[in-house]
Amino acid sequence: MIDQLNGASRLFPIIGDPVKHVQSPPWLTRTFAERGHNGICIPMEVPEGDLGVVMGGLTATPNVDGILVTMPHKFTAFEHCASSSERARMLGVVSVIRRNADGTWHGDMLDGLAFVKAQLDRGARIAGARALLVGAGGAGSAIAIALLEAGIGELIIHDADEARVAGLLELLAGFGNGRVTAGSPDPAGCDLVFNATPMGMDVGDPVPVDTTRLTPAMFVGDVISGHGTTAFVAAAQAHGCKTATGDHMVEAVQNLMADFMLGE
Amino acid sequence: MIDQLNGASRLFPIIGDPVKHVQSPPWLTRTFAERGHNGICIPMEVPEGDLGVVMGGLTATPNVDGILVTMPHKFTAFEHCASSSERARMLGVVSVIRRNADGTWHGDMLDGLAFVKAQLDRGARIAGARALLVGAGGAGSAIAIALLEAGIGELIIHDADEARVAGLLELLAGFGNGRVTAGSPDPAGCDLVFNATPMGMDVGDPVPVDTTRLTPAMFVGDVISGHGTTAFVAAAQAHGCKTATGDHMVEAVQNLMADFMLGE
Repeated sequence: MIDQLNGASRLFPIIGDPVKHVQSPPWLTRTFAERGHNGICIPMEVPEGDLGVVMGGLTATPNVDGILVTMPHKFTAFEHCASSSERARMLGVVSVIRRNADGTWHGDMLDGLAFVKAQLDRGARIAGARALLVGAGGAGSAIAIALLEAGIGELIIHDADEARVAGLLELLAGFGNGRVTAGSPDPAGCDLVFNATPMGMDVGDPVPVDTTRLTPAMFVGDVISGHGTTAFVAAAQAHGCKTATGDHMVEAVQNLMADFMLGE
Repeated sequence: MIDQLNGASRLFPIIGDPVKHVQSPPWLTRTFAERGHNGICIPMEVPEGDLGVVMGGLTATPNVDGILVTMPHKFTAFEHCASSSERARMLGVVSVIRRNADGTWHGDMLDGLAFVKAQLDRGARIAGARALLVGAGGAGSAIAIALLEAGIGELIIHDADEARVAGLLELLAGFGNGRVTAGSPDPAGCDLVFNATPMGMDVGDPVPVDTTRLTPAMFVGDVISGHGTTAFVAAAQAHGCKTATGDHMVEAVQNLMADFMLGE
């Protein structure tokens, strides 16, 4: 399956905690191979407080060409980037990092683009639609921007942490043109219902929205990957909804990440 | 070829500079797979002065279970080990490191054992023989101990750095029982002629011994791996000598390393 691992391999660690469920190690490694590049994506379990010391080690290792960033490091990793894309700066969040010519790091945020691509690939209509987005953290913020860029008609944002919602609304104020409001986890009246919280990572997690209010015309999308069909997606399917899982998002992001890492 | 890379993979970096030529990434990874263990050996290029910061990062990454150490870090990595084998302590050198139960590092030095095993596997007789060993650094010192343990009759050690030779003779004083002396790079009169210096890593390197003095009865061994047939080994073969290359040593060490990393 992977035949390019050797002493000349370039490294692309994915840092997160937990990291066992991530799918990029085989997927991105295979995508590199398909492009004729000897790059290996490896899982690195990095506890929340240890990002600085791990980044120090990776920065000092010249055959580390790029880093994939997952929870809980997406906010803090931004601070390790000497340069970044505008969308990454807007959010203060990165999902991918690659080397600048001087060995410093350049960050970007591809999660929102990949999430929207996964929904479109699975049959969702975004333009003009009304969406409930639960989760105003790093992933939720990136998805909100990508949905607005894709022409969403109305975006309702909910998060148990109301200050997070207020902060995201403020961030989007000049961008959303009145299309964005705070709301409840009740999906009634929405065309699209999205989970961008960690709920679904652990067995027994509550579902992020009131699933009793789902209807068959709704399209449901989830960011949770590597956990099969989450309780949220299963409930949506039981209600007859079309769905996209976090695995679909991970699939969509592989080519975007390979493009970024190889500077293409 | 390697099909176990995923988010649950355990990591075994090999740290060195240069690192492009190392063969452990595919070899040790395959050895782990043959034993049913999801372990990946990855190359990490670590400049000489950056060992501390890289060790800090690896120590903070719980899915790093072990580290292979190659030049120039074999001496300095010893200082990062909370515990070690007696032979590692004797040399102040480690070639392999694994976790203790409390997350600290335990070091050992397998190079000498692997070198001797490679010579024996290729037809050398060690017991009672007369050997010239060129190179009194980390590898040379480990090989000297392993040769003495294997019953070598007489061991002549040469290094361009005479202080290194003197230091190694002092280290071996209570161990060699008069079998060890300092000498020149002239192999005349020896049964075994060994290179334990980095000479042969770069095209145009001088050969480590006076190859004009080789004879067909001599057995020649080299530590340089990943560079094909070195000029030294080629000269020995031209003189009709049996030989073992650094690649044979690397092959011999794979099972020893897998045993160590898995605590077997």
